[in-house]
This record gives sequence, structure tokens and C-alpha cells, in this order.
Amino acid sequence: MLKLFHAPDSCARAAHIALEEAGAAYEAVAMSLAEGDQRKPDYLAINPKGRVPALMTDQGVLTETPAILTYIALLHPESVLALPADPFRFAEIQSFNLYLCATLHVAHAHKLRGTRWADDPAAIADMRRKVPVSVGGCFDLIESALFRGPWVMGETFTICDPYLFVFAEWMEGDGVDPARFPKVRDHRRRMAARPAVARVNAAR
Amino acid sequence: MLKLFHAPDSCARAAHIALEEAGAAYEAVAMSLAEGDQRKPDYLAINPKGRVPALMTDQGVLTETPAILTYIALLHPESVLALPADPFRFAEIQSFNLYLCATLHVAHAHKLRGTRWADDPAAIADMRRKVPVSVGGCFDLIESALFRGPWVMGETFTICDPYLFVFAEWMEGDGVDPARFPKVRDHRRRMAARPAVARVNAAR
Repeated sequence: MLKLFHAPDSCARAAHIALEEAGAAYEAVAMSLAEGDQRKPDYLAINPKGRVPALMTDQGVLTETPAILTYIALLHPESVLALPADPFRFAEIQSFNLYLCATLHVAHAHKLRGTRWADDPAAIADMRRKVPVSVGGCFDLIESALFRGPWVMGETFTICDPYLFVFAEWMEGDGVDPARFPKVRDHRRRMAARPAVARVNAAR
Repeated sequence: MLKLFHAPDSCARAAHIALEEAGAAYEAVAMSLAEGDQRKPDYLAINPKGRVPALMTDQGVLTETPAILTYIALLHPESVLALPADPFRFAEIQSFNLYLCATLHVAHAHKLRGTRWADDPAAIADMRRKVPVSVGGCFDLIESALFRGPWVMGETFTICDPYLFVFAEWMEGDGVDPARFPKVRDHRRRMAARPAVARVNAAR
């Protein structure tokens, strides 16, 4: 059985929602980032990166949200997460999730994880000040160019939707006004109303 | 026909090598990042992110290196880049490339692209100072835990190999001593000797 190591308000929420959307058989293990669970030896033996999420499978452990989302979808081809067989359509989905992972999430991480990239407290404070601009810039691009509607990829729900939802929920905390992004805000409302999201929230 | 928009010494080199490894029919369009080609209106119409690489296909444009590498491999299932049918093996490859994209490349980007995340010149200088530590830390994890040998994923060459190679070539510029990472250094030597890499270098 799949076992998801996650933290309730981390990006691992996307994988958690995807497991529910897929109707997967899984166990969720909640970690406390505040207590540093992700850096304890037991967990480092599972994921030496010391991050969440990690998905334990019968074949080994997977990390990195877009890879985990793709794996969950590949395991559940009859579910709402089914991936397109066409290589271009498949790659488009990867491309969107990569933007969230490597640009939007990275911009967000400069709010609380600045010590990854600088040591001087003044530098870390300056990074934090810029988060509303850098995260807002990512949502500008998503709203104006990447998001198709009603779902991220158009008419079909995909693994892009739970992942975008997680970052959209963080907007206020990142100092970004959701009213600037009506398509993303409407998407967030519709995602929040999904039974899969309600089940994940109930498990908090 | 595929058309790759790249810059010779950018991460787009990975996609360029992959096209050669796959024996793909493609055209390469070299951009100058120093001259800001990637932010000119003609290119922004192709890729509104203003970054390289972008791969133009008959179905549209793909961005983000791991997605482009996966697409090239899916189009060439008879080539050395053939992806495994097993979902876990497929996802492992994605996971490794995601680490390069979202952690290692991001660490590297703090050397020259600090203005993405801070405004104060002192903060940007502090970011730059930390690059040898943050990039070196990524290679520590790769060398000790992620790299299997002789290729990234073990006995089989995959789309992870050209991508790792690009970052390994950047080590000295990032202030990281390749001698600390004998497996990665040996991999870099073997990658540099491949005919596909020689063909890409000849096109510089």
C-alpha cells in the first residue's frame, strides 16, 4: 500500500488531494515541520532530502511533487487523474507542474526558507520582502498565459489542478491579493468545494 | 519538425544533447542571453516565460527542461532515451530530474539571477557568496544517495544523464571542486566523450 509522508500545510497537500481524487488505497503519515520531523534520522532514512512529500511504495520511495502526482495518475488510469496518451498533452501537464515546482514554489520559499540561499539576516529579510512581487509575478503569468479554464489544462481535470490549488491557498500569506487573479480565484473556490479536498481537510 | 530555442551554455544544453542522443529531426535556434534575446517580443510570443529552453512542436510549444526531455524520449521509444513502461521506474527518472531543476538549478541561479528574489545589492552579493555551499550540498546528496552508476539510474542511460552533465560542467564556475564528487566527475568525463555531446559542441 502507498504511504504518503506529508505535512498538512505544505505542498505535500497536492499529493494528498491527488490520492483522494484517484480513490487510491493509501496511508497518510502527518509530519510536523515546525518540530523538524523531516530532519529526524528515521525520516532521513526514507528521504535523505529531509523534505516532504515522500511516497513510499512497494518498489521504493518517490520524492518531488510533480513526480509523485504523475505516479499516482499512472497507477489510476481509470480515475479522474488519467493522463493523456499523447506525448505532447502529457508533456504539457508536466510543464505546468514544473513551473509551479521550480518557479512559483521557489519564489514562495524565499519567505521562510531564505537560509537555503543566504546567511546574512539582512539578506534574508530582503528576500522575504520581495515574495509578494515574485509570487505575484508567477500568478500574473498563470492567469494571463498558462491557465486555460475551467481547469488548468482546459475542459479536463488533471494533476495540475490540486497542485495549483495549494499555491493559490497560500496567496494571502504571501502578500498577494487573490482579487488580482479572477481565474485562479474561481479555480480555488471550485477546488475547495471538491469532496476529495474535504476529505483531506477532515484528516488534518 | 521540432525546433529547439536554446542558449549554448544554459541548461537548454541538456535538451540539445537529448535531441542528438535520440537521433531526432530538429532545428536548433541559438539565443544570446547576454543580449537579452529571451526577452524580445518575438521570443516572448513563443515562450512568455522569457527563458530557454523552449521546444516548438507541431502541436504547440513546450517549456521546462524535464518536460522537454520526457517529450523527446516519448517521441523516440526506439532510442537510447526510451522510458520504462513501469510507472515507478518512470517516476524515479522524473524525480531525479526534478531535483536538478527545482533544487540544484535554483541554487546555481542565485549566482547570477539573484534579482529574481531580492533587490538590495548586499543581499544579492550574499546570495552569490553562498552558491558554492548550496550547489555543493546538492552534489553531496547526488554523490552519496541519488547517483547509482555507471549512469544516474544504474545500468541504463536515461534522460537524467544529459541533464546532470550540464550542471556538473558548471561546478568550477559555481566554486565547487569536482574532486569532491568522484562518481559525478567520472560520469561527466564519460558524458563528454559521447558523440552526441561532440555534435552539440560542434554546433556552438
